[in-house]
Amino acid sequence: MAELTAKGRATRARILAVAADLVLKQGVAGTQIEDVRRAAGVSGSQMTHYFRDKRTLIKDVIAWQADKMQRLHQTPELGELDSYAAWRRWADLVVERQTARDFQGGCDFGSLAGQLVESDADTRADLAAGYERWLELFRRGLEAMRARGELREDADPDALAQSLLAALQGGLLLSQTLRRVEPLRNSLNAVLTYLGSYADPGRRPA
Amino acid sequence: MAELTAKGRATRARILAVAADLVLKQGVAGTQIEDVRRAAGVSGSQMTHYFRDKRTLIKDVIAWQADKMQRLHQTPELGELDSYAAWRRWADLVVERQTARDFQGGCDFGSLAGQLVESDADTRADLAAGYERWLELFRRGLEAMRARGELREDADPDALAQSLLAALQGGLLLSQTLRRVEPLRNSLNAVLTYLGSYADPGRRPA
Repeated sequence: MAELTAKGRATRARILAVAADLVLKQGVAGTQIEDVRRAAGVSGSQMTHYFRDKRTLIKDVIAWQADKMQRLHQTPELGELDSYAAWRRWADLVVERQTARDFQGGCDFGSLAGQLVESDADTRADLAAGYERWLELFRRGLEAMRARGELREDADPDALAQSLLAALQGGLLLSQTLRRVEPLRNSLNAVLTYLGSYADPGRRPA
Repeated sequence: MAELTAKGRATRARILAVAADLVLKQGVAGTQIEDVRRAAGVSGSQMTHYFRDKRTLIKDVIAWQADKMQRLHQTPELGELDSYAAWRRWADLVVERQTARDFQGGCDFGSLAGQLVESDADTRADLAAGYERWLELFRRGLEAMRARGELREDADPDALAQSLLAALQGGLLLSQTLRRVEPLRNSLNAVLTYLGSYADPGRRPA
């Protein structure tokens, strides 16, 4: 795909965005290449030009959602996720975003993991890479907090990043399935309270 | 199915167990009726007799896994999940069980939710009912702890049950995708520490 023109890149990006949206609403199994082609308003030959088959398309949707997760977490509002206030805003934003769409689709990235993790080794590796990038982003924020003394020395940024991401993923899956906000809100509240328990007693969290 | 003989019920149960196992290893989309028939060693007409089509089979697999989750949580070892010690044993058992199978398949029930939640309204309702039973089981244990004064009065058994189940589901999905134990262990450890923060200060947790 190195030789795509600007117009070609735009078309490809548009097809991917449409595919990601359909997959979120209907699931991977419920989304066919033909649905995507129609929703994106492109011809069959254009579709084949950009995405050889469903497998290629889904692989690119995974990468697209992993990139989007990074961008969503790197807004001025959240900063570097390196303060208690930023983590609280993060939780509020997640809850707002999911409530606005009635919990349909669940986590944009995690729902792909839940559907595809056992499909084949390649796909699992792509999903694992997405989660590792996400954990790294969390860990960097937590490390900065520890470096500034906002988290005690005995706080383990790796373990905390995993607990935060797990609470998010589980809360999203429960709220998606039950179509109500409480599991997500309570799960995030629990893990943020746990994070707060590592506040350096010599300092006041923001 | 009200008229099945004892032998019929046993055959049906065997097919379901085989189907549940295949679905766990290969995913719902990757498991065809014919795979299940062959693995269970039954004829095509037997298969059709017990399960009209894949949709019926998957519906019964969901119910079967929901029942199994209940049984797994109601062993003498775990009691009524109504003490800190019982919750710690629960976490240890989950970690052991998943480690023994190299995290393949993830949560027996949650992996079905992750794959099928957006497939259709009926299936989502079945999955939601399974999670509600599971939450109810957790809540009963937590309510007993509060009634005995092992959890403070301000502890909310509903919210705690949701946080515990979310930490489990998220930890399992991360460990399943990353094929390593740490996310599951750290997620459970975080939520149990959070639970412990509701210990009545006038009492020592077991």
